Amino acid sequence: MSLSGLIEDNRRAVEAEPSRARVVFKVGGELTGTTEVGLRARDHAITVDEPPSLGGQDAAANPVEYALAAIASCQAITYRFWADKLGIALDGVQVVAEGDLDVNGFFGFDDAVRPGFTEVRLEVRPSGLESPERYQELAEAVDAHCPVLDLFSNPTPVTRKVAVGV
Amino acid sequence: MSLSGLIEDNRRAVEAEPSRARVVFKVGGELTGTTEVGLRARDHAITVDEPPSLGGQDAAANPVEYALAAIASCQAITYRFWADKLGIALDGVQVVAEGDLDVNGFFGFDDAVRPGFTEVRLEVRPSGLESPERYQELAEAVDAHCPVLDLFSNPTPVTRKVAVGV
Repeated sequence: MSLSGLIEDNRRAVEAEPSRARVVFKVGGELTGTTEVGLRARDHAITVDEPPSLGGQDAAANPVEYALAAIASCQAITYRFWADKLGIALDGVQVVAEGDLDVNGFFGFDDAVRPGFTEVRLEVRPSGLESPERYQELAEAVDAHCPVLDLFSNPTPVTRKVAVGV
Repeated sequence: MSLSGLIEDNRRAVEAEPSRARVVFKVGGELTGTTEVGLRARDHAITVDEPPSLGGQDAAANPVEYALAAIASCQAITYRFWADKLGIALDGVQVVAEGDLDVNGFFGFDDAVRPGFTEVRLEVRPSGLESPERYQELAEAVDAHCPVLDLFSNPTPVTRKVAVGV
């Protein structure tokens, strides 16, 4: 099925039963080494680790690199969906995501420094035979609808429970 | 080296040369299928895809699941570091991260709905022989210093460049 067909199917399903629009995603796991973490998302295993400079054995990318992978891939996939939706031919999309981190925050050397990224830069290169104006239109539609760009750009309510001693 | 030794080494390095505190992380790649994305973070390959219900072939977890993996693993690793820093014995940490998404946002059915998570829930289970009060102290230190929790909870400036037709 084409993506625009899938979008229309979703629109009909959500119109018939609004609760279908609400989806819960879940990932769980645990520390499996000094800094190595083994996680599962549905049937998919995800390994995370730190490089030796951050105490790990570099078995995999680290958490902030996975966050950048999330935004880069979300941009690429949202280009695909919205190109279909807007009828814009799209042969491919290349994406680079870079984030600046000041480790004074994470290590607690300076609590005036935030622990997370101070800035993130995205460079996106859509390819195909449409005019630059149409790809610009696409980029604007993508940026208004990309879930992980929204997560980065805007505050999300996070509740945290700690279960101790069980 | 112990993590607290590594933290001290970092403190000395940053005191000697403040610019060492600033680190840039980078992830890049491209669409390799309808919704499949192939990325690299340093030497680590990361594959992302959507399930069939979202137009993909389910080759891997999807972008919002990677975002949850980022926050879950960042919590786990920050527990490890801050347990060492605070001298709190920690045998292990289990983490579950759940996020609610309303697809009306992503698909553009209702532009009053944000495309990203409307709420994220973390459940963290540190284990070890310390008192519940000490793990509570640890949890609070972690939440103040966890880079990806900061990314989720607070706005991050994102700049985006689109290169078209090259």
